[in-house]
Amino acid sequence: MNTTPLTLHLELGERSYDILIGDGLLETVGERLAPLLRGRQAAVVTNTTVAPLYLERVTRSLAAAGFTVLPIVLADGEETKDWRHWQQVIDRLLEARCERTTALIALGGGVVGDLTGFVAATFLRGVPFVQLPTTLLSQVDASVGGKTGINHPLGKNLIGAFYQPRLVMIDLATLESLPRRELVAGMAEVIKYGIIRDAGFFQLLEERIDQLLNLERTTLGEVIHRCTAIKAEVVAADERESGARALLNLGHTFGHAIESLSGYGRWLHGEAVAAGTVVAADLSQRLGLCGEGDVARIRDLLRRTGLPVTIPAFPTPAYLESMSRDKKVEAGRIRFILVEAIGRAIQATDAPAGTVALALAANMAGTDRATPS
Amino acid sequence: MNTTPLTLHLELGERSYDILIGDGLLETVGERLAPLLRGRQAAVVTNTTVAPLYLERVTRSLAAAGFTVLPIVLADGEETKDWRHWQQVIDRLLEARCERTTALIALGGGVVGDLTGFVAATFLRGVPFVQLPTTLLSQVDASVGGKTGINHPLGKNLIGAFYQPRLVMIDLATLESLPRRELVAGMAEVIKYGIIRDAGFFQLLEERIDQLLNLERTTLGEVIHRCTAIKAEVVAADERESGARALLNLGHTFGHAIESLSGYGRWLHGEAVAAGTVVAADLSQRLGLCGEGDVARIRDLLRRTGLPVTIPAFPTPAYLESMSRDKKVEAGRIRFILVEAIGRAIQATDAPAGTVALALAANMAGTDRATPS
Repeated sequence: MNTTPLTLHLELGERSYDILIGDGLLETVGERLAPLLRGRQAAVVTNTTVAPLYLERVTRSLAAAGFTVLPIVLADGEETKDWRHWQQVIDRLLEARCERTTALIALGGGVVGDLTGFVAATFLRGVPFVQLPTTLLSQVDASVGGKTGINHPLGKNLIGAFYQPRLVMIDLATLESLPRRELVAGMAEVIKYGIIRDAGFFQLLEERIDQLLNLERTTLGEVIHRCTAIKAEVVAADERESGARALLNLGHTFGHAIESLSGYGRWLHGEAVAAGTVVAADLSQRLGLCGEGDVARIRDLLRRTGLPVTIPAFPTPAYLESMSRDKKVEAGRIRFILVEAIGRAIQATDAPAGTVALALAANMAGTDRATPS
Repeated sequence: MNTTPLTLHLELGERSYDILIGDGLLETVGERLAPLLRGRQAAVVTNTTVAPLYLERVTRSLAAAGFTVLPIVLADGEETKDWRHWQQVIDRLLEARCERTTALIALGGGVVGDLTGFVAATFLRGVPFVQLPTTLLSQVDASVGGKTGINHPLGKNLIGAFYQPRLVMIDLATLESLPRRELVAGMAEVIKYGIIRDAGFFQLLEERIDQLLNLERTTLGEVIHRCTAIKAEVVAADERESGARALLNLGHTFGHAIESLSGYGRWLHGEAVAAGTVVAADLSQRLGLCGEGDVARIRDLLRRTGLPVTIPAFPTPAYLESMSRDKKVEAGRIRFILVEAIGRAIQATDAPAGTVALALAANMAGTDRATPS
């Protein structure tokens, strides 16, 4: 199937770009990219899981449009998102005589996208960047908004740059090969958009979560389009993450702590965000912001989706310590995204540590449930 | 002396900033910076040569304005501009719990400025950056235009980002402590501005080079102001280096090859640019662009300044190979900045390799003159 894709235009002045959503888009990468670029050299960065599935398809399309293609296949996993691999990719580009006009194409999930984007931002002070996200998470989240980066031993995404892609192409067909666990994890970010900004969308998800998980194509296309549109709206209004954009971090302050304490890779990002969202909602209710009914609806939808709704059992001070290292800290105060109602989130820095500790403890699993898988 | 500084406003939309030029400015860093920033934490990155001279002065001024100061003192030299040191600085910032509002202040020459700027561009996806350039070269060149970066074993500045500072403060008093060789090297970039854009300025330099080298303060202030104004003009018109800005690279394609072939650190950047400018002028004349008189005037002024006017003796193919790795390559063609007349430079990618080789050979020193010092 190769119908006309849904198109979303992100208006960011000279850094504007399009997001295309549709079936079979990978086969059209070359022809769609060629008019946007001066050069005809492209490096496709991907991983050992995605390469056997889609690399040839992308390479063939690029070659047909006149591109010389340098494939760079990395190991799969969050460990790849470090400065050793960042250096390796840069070394490969230099050995292959890549230039300022060489396009860097990320073919894969969030790890590939973040790492490749950071290479694109920093190689020769910036080269054209293209995203071909192949996981639900990266399609609805990581591929929109210009965040690129790598992890540091002390925390996730502590090194990076804001750098916009020239084009994002979301091929729905790639979700067919996505493991169920990753599909489910991606739904955490989908649900997040409903909670922070769109009560009607949240309700639609409550009604159609089963069709979504069965990859019912029409619903899937609509839902991804709605998520990217919400995110695009927020990002366009607030490119540098000073205000509204922070709301996208619902569940992330707790989620990053889960990932960090468990060791990167044991929890999928979306799983950590789901459990973190439950804690954030619970904290909101304890602070008198939202009702118990809202917390229950959030917990129920996440559970029905197959997502974890409790955080792993680490000492509460370990959570607080880990969160205080997060980027979302200002003047030593941890910044929380809280829920006023489904469809409406706010930012707060004045949550008392005691209440945060209570919310953590109340949603902690026994040690037998320390990982979600 | 602490008179009102000359001020140059760089209009770059939301990334606009001021350049201040004057005597004794380092003593006023804190009070001038405080109104621009939300945070009151600052990391001052400098090196072992500059720290004993100026670090206390800067720290005292910042502390008086309410800043907490983290000093980071690196080894002096081009070797510091690598990813190992970039990582080290980031590690220090994380250990000290620096946040998104922490200002990164570069106190030193181009190496400190480029490295610190690249850290500021990439730490937590970008933190406020302030430049206090203490060498003539960094005052007239590296502190204006948003170029940050580090070197790669295969070439200079191959990794980096465009990232604008919030404020640049040029304290003329710091040139008193600058070694003569570095002062002279900085003059190469000063002279460059005359060649590419301002024949009257070139003539002024011919007339007043001795006063300048004697640090005659009024002339010095005027000349630095004129250089930054020319660069600011070019950069404001062309922030991403697609067109006019490339002219600032006069002498740099050959210069980078000199530095790379000699091993970083043996030639000062300005010395390499001076010798490279002679080759570029000579090539321009061979291509029928400018007259022999122009080449002679350029060579004479550089020589009177005390700058090298011949390139070190390496095989011509080694030069061509090194230049083909430069960032200023497009579709495999080396991009040269050529001289039409003093005050007017152009960009060209069609110089025949044979003519380039002739220009290199004609301006090559005997092996006894392979380094300028």
